[in-house]
Amino acid sequence: MPELRRDPVAGRWVIIATDRAARPHQFQGQKRVPRGGFCPFCEGNETKTPPEILAYRSPGTHPNTPGWRVRVVPNKYPALRVEGDLHMRGVGVYDTMEGIGAHEVLIESPKHVLSPSELTTEALEEVVRAYRDRMLDLKKDVRLVCAMLFKNVGVEAGASLEHSHSQLICTPVAPKRVQEEMDRCNEFYRFRGRCLLCDIIQQELADGQRVVVDKEGFVVLTPYASRFPFEMWILPRQHTAHFEDITDEMIGGLAGALHEALRRLDASLDDPPYNYNIHTVPFVLGPVPYYHWHIEVIPRVTAIAGFEWGTGFYINPVAPETAAQFLREASWKREPAGVGTAASR
Amino acid sequence: MPELRRDPVAGRWVIIATDRAARPHQFQGQKRVPRGGFCPFCEGNETKTPPEILAYRSPGTHPNTPGWRVRVVPNKYPALRVEGDLHMRGVGVYDTMEGIGAHEVLIESPKHVLSPSELTTEALEEVVRAYRDRMLDLKKDVRLVCAMLFKNVGVEAGASLEHSHSQLICTPVAPKRVQEEMDRCNEFYRFRGRCLLCDIIQQELADGQRVVVDKEGFVVLTPYASRFPFEMWILPRQHTAHFEDITDEMIGGLAGALHEALRRLDASLDDPPYNYNIHTVPFVLGPVPYYHWHIEVIPRVTAIAGFEWGTGFYINPVAPETAAQFLREASWKREPAGVGTAASR
Repeated sequence: MPELRRDPVAGRWVIIATDRAARPHQFQGQKRVPRGGFCPFCEGNETKTPPEILAYRSPGTHPNTPGWRVRVVPNKYPALRVEGDLHMRGVGVYDTMEGIGAHEVLIESPKHVLSPSELTTEALEEVVRAYRDRMLDLKKDVRLVCAMLFKNVGVEAGASLEHSHSQLICTPVAPKRVQEEMDRCNEFYRFRGRCLLCDIIQQELADGQRVVVDKEGFVVLTPYASRFPFEMWILPRQHTAHFEDITDEMIGGLAGALHEALRRLDASLDDPPYNYNIHTVPFVLGPVPYYHWHIEVIPRVTAIAGFEWGTGFYINPVAPETAAQFLREASWKREPAGVGTAASR
Repeated sequence: MPELRRDPVAGRWVIIATDRAARPHQFQGQKRVPRGGFCPFCEGNETKTPPEILAYRSPGTHPNTPGWRVRVVPNKYPALRVEGDLHMRGVGVYDTMEGIGAHEVLIESPKHVLSPSELTTEALEEVVRAYRDRMLDLKKDVRLVCAMLFKNVGVEAGASLEHSHSQLICTPVAPKRVQEEMDRCNEFYRFRGRCLLCDIIQQELADGQRVVVDKEGFVVLTPYASRFPFEMWILPRQHTAHFEDITDEMIGGLAGALHEALRRLDASLDDPPYNYNIHTVPFVLGPVPYYHWHIEVIPRVTAIAGFEWGTGFYINPVAPETAAQFLREASWKREPAGVGTAASR
C-alpha cells in the first residue's frame, strides 16, 4: 500500500509508492560522464574567468595566476547584477524590480574533478570555509536579503561546466520556499516552544532507521517525507540559525559529514547527477530560535513529471528507510587518492 | 539588466535573465523521438491494460476491444489506491496516512500519436470531455479532495510510454501548491473584491504583448513571471472556479485553444518535451469567486538546477514577451492530416 507522508518543514505531501520500483539499483543508470574539452576552471586558465573575488593560495602566488586551492569568481553570465538600485514597483497586478544581487562561482579544486567526493576531506573543508567567508562578506550589503548556496553536479542536474564548483546567489527578496519554511518552523515554535528541526534530529537519532551518518556534531539522514530516491539532509546537531555563523571547528565536522554522504551516494548509485543546497535563515533575521540551517542533497535519478510541477506533491518510488540502509551499506573507499596525485585530467 | 518579476498567483519570484541566451531557437535541441516497440495503449492491445473505466466507442463495439476513440483505464502502477481507509495519524513530529486515491490514465487516440498536436481538434475535444467526465465521477467519492490532471510528453518530461496520454490523480489532501494558490487568490479577493486571474486576463488583453491566442472564449498567454522559456497558460475568459463545470460549448473552445497552443509550441521548438496541468479548485469547495481554473503548459527545454529546487526561485533566460512573439509568428500547419489517415505507425 502506498503511504502519504508530510514533510513538516516545507509542509508538502509526498507519496511513498514503493510498489513502482523494486530495487535501489534500478536508479544507477544516470551516470556522470566526463565530456572533456577546454575548461576555464582548471589551474592555468585563470584569465578565462572574471577576476577572482577570493582565493585560498600558496604564499607568494599572485591573484588570477596558478597556486590556488579554492577560487571564487563572479559568474560570467550572472542571473543578477551587483550594480544599481532595486526600483521596486507595480505593473498593474504584477510586481517587479531590477535584478540586483550577487551571483558568484566557487571553484572547488585546481584539478579537473567532477564531484567533491573526489577531493580529500581537507580540501572539502576549504570549500566549506569559502562558502562561509563569501556569505559573511555579502551579508554586509544591506540590499541583499537571502543567500542561496547551491551545487549542480552533472548535465541532468543543470551543470553547464563539469569541473566541480558551487554557486552562490544572493537575492534582494526572500524566495518563496525559504519564506514558507521560516513561516512553518516559526508556527511550530510558537506552539511547541522548540525548533522543529531539533525535534526531527532527536526523533531520527532515537529511531535510527533513516540515519546514514552520525559523527563530529553532524547527522546525515534520509528525510521521512523524501521527495526523491536517496534524498539526504545534513544537519548540525547543535541548533544554529545561520549557516554563516559556523565555527572553524564545525567546518571540519561538516566537511567530514558532507564528504562521507557524497561518497556513499556516489558509491551507491554509481556517480549519479545531483544537486545540493544550503537552507539557511535570511541575512535580515537575527539568530532565531525556530529555524536550523541544513544542507539538502537531491540525486537526479528520476524525471520530474507534470504531477510534481503542478502540485508540489511528489511521488517517490524508494522508501527513505530503504535508501538509508542502502547508503549505510555502500562499500565506499575510505580515502580518495587525493587530487594532487591521481585526479589530473 | 535582469529583471525580477513576481507571479501574483503562486507568489514566487522569477529572474528574467535575457542576457544568458540570445535566441529562442537555442531551445530547439530537446526533440521528442519515437522509440518504437510494443505499445499497450494502441488499438488492438486492450488486454494489456487494466479493464477500461470509460471509453467513447463506435456503436456496437464491446468494452476492452477495438472501436474506441478515447479510453480511460486505471494506472497499472498506481501511486495511490482506491481501496481502504485513510487512517490519518502522527508519527512523532510527522504526519502520515494511507495512500488512498485514484490514479487513472486517459489514452487520447487509438493510433500511436506522440502529442495532441497530431490529433484533429475534434479528437482533442473528446479528450477534454473525458477529463471532465472522469472528474465528475471521482468527485462523488467524498474521500477525494483534489483532482490533478496532468500530461507528460517526452521522456525528459517524465513520460514512460510515448503514446499520447494524460493522467488523473485524485488525492485525499490538498497539495501544497494548490492550497497556496487558493490562499493567495483569496487574499487578493478579500482586498480588491475581484478574481486575480480575471484581472490578469483583462490586463493581458489590454496590453497584448504576451497574448498568443485569443479565440472562442479562451486566452493563451505567456505569463508575466514565466518560470520557463515558452511557458503558456490557457484560461477561460469567463470566470469559472472548477474545471469540471465546463459546459459542452466551452469544451469546443478549450480544445481549439489548447490545440492551437500546442501546435504553435511544437512548430516553434521542433516538438519539445513538455508537461501540462489543469489548475482547478478542490472538489470540497463550492464555486468560489476568487479562483479561476486554467491550464499551465511547461516546455522542458532547460534543466532545472539546484537554485530552483532549493528556493522556488526560477531563472528564465527568455522574456515571455519574446516567447509570445515567437509563438505568434510560428508557421504551423492549420490542420493535421488526421489520425485516421497519416498518423498510423
